[in-house]
This record gives sequence, C-alpha cells and structure tokens, in this order.
Amino acid sequence: MRRTFTFVEIGVVHSPYKKDGEAPKQGFLRPEVTGELEIYPEYAGAISTLNPGDEMNLVFIFDRSEGYDLISERKGGAGEIRGLFSTRSPRRINPIGISDIVVKEINGLTVTFSGVDMLDGTPVIDLKPVIR
Amino acid sequence: MRRTFTFVEIGVVHSPYKKDGEAPKQGFLRPEVTGELEIYPEYAGAISTLNPGDEMNLVFIFDRSEGYDLISERKGGAGEIRGLFSTRSPRRINPIGISDIVVKEINGLTVTFSGVDMLDGTPVIDLKPVIR
Repeated sequence: MRRTFTFVEIGVVHSPYKKDGEAPKQGFLRPEVTGELEIYPEYAGAISTLNPGDEMNLVFIFDRSEGYDLISERKGGAGEIRGLFSTRSPRRINPIGISDIVVKEINGLTVTFSGVDMLDGTPVIDLKPVIR
Repeated sequence: MRRTFTFVEIGVVHSPYKKDGEAPKQGFLRPEVTGELEIYPEYAGAISTLNPGDEMNLVFIFDRSEGYDLISERKGGAGEIRGLFSTRSPRRINPIGISDIVVKEINGLTVTFSGVDMLDGTPVIDLKPVIR
C-alpha cells in the first residue's frame, strides 16, 4: 500500500478565466492580467508579512481536471510522445498546480496578483516565497 | 467546511541526509550532492521521456514535520516576525515541499538528481518540468 496525504484548502482564487481553455498555459504569458487570492480567515496570520512585489509559488488544485495518462501524444506535436512527468498538464496522478505569481496589493484577506493562470474558484493549498 | 484533497505517493527519495538539520535549506546550496528518486513501478510510463539535464520541480511531503505557526520569529533575525506564507519552513498548514532539481541520470525506475535537500525516505507526490 502506498502512503496517502490529505490537504485542506487555505483559500480560493478569483480569476477572470471561468472555464477550461480560457486560461493561458502559463500565467507569465499574460502578465497584465491579475487574479485575487482570498485567504480564509483562520489563516490570516500567514499572509501578515506579504508585500507588493513578492514573487511567490502559488500551490493549487486542478479541481476540474479528471484522470490522467502516463504517456500521451503532444498536441500538435506530429506524434511526439511524452511521459506525464515531462509535462505540466493539469491531468496528473495528483492534480497539483504550481504557478509563479507576483503580489500586487494586499487588502485584508485579499491578495491581488499577476501571473494568474487558474480558473475561477480554484482551491489553494499553499503559498511560498520564490528563492533564487 | 473547507474542501480537502488526498494525494498518493508516486515514489520516494533516497538521500544522504538522514535526519533533521542535516539537509541544506535549499538544494542549490550544495549542487554537488545527488539524491535518487525511486519511482514506483505503476507509474513507470510517467518518466519515460525524462532526460539528463532536465530541470524539474520535485513536489514532496515534509513527512517528519509536525504542526505549524501562522506567525513566527525568524531564527537569528533579532526579533523579526514572519507570516508562514513568507517562509519556506517545513512546518506548514499543508506540509508540501517544492525543490528545483536537475536530472543527472535515469536507470530504470531510479532518477539520480542534483539539488537534493530532502531527508532520506521522503514521499514524492509530483514531478514537473520547469518552464521559464
């Protein structure tokens, strides 16, 4: 038996992208578009030292993704085959997404950010500063 | 009620670091040290197109971490206070770690990589290519 791990959402993304196919593949492709991360009140302290300009990893759930293929053909790739771990496809064994975002503004429990590539209503499970 | 999500380990890290305090804060601080990611056989197809030189996000569980503080004092920070989401501390609401690694060699189900900063036996839940 493999070990399993259960996580709880710590907030939710409000995004201009409402359904599959609207969001860019990576948020940095549309840097002018912003989203909002609404942190749940019980975790307010965790964002108390965020600042505009902070570059962060936003860790979220692809909650509208179903199933996965271990090996698939790349779209438009003329038959090119790729293993799942060579892709950032939302269709994953564990449907976890990680996006680089930049904090623009913090108002109470709402963090406005650029780099949004999640659908509206996406559950968020973690937020970490990028270290280079 | 908040939504919860359950994930399964897809492999395990073999690391030279056996207990807390031995691993570097970030793997790139000791680029010469390698670890091994052992992928479980049921997911073999997912690594079938990995190549040496691939830069990846390794997503894992801080399985020896317990509890968290929403606000804490930075170690050696002369009283500097930080919110949890301004840190990469292993003590998190959802104890998920993300490290940048570079694939060195693939032998069957074993992926040798540099950038190791996980403890030996750490459960892995995802692997994604870094896109810049």
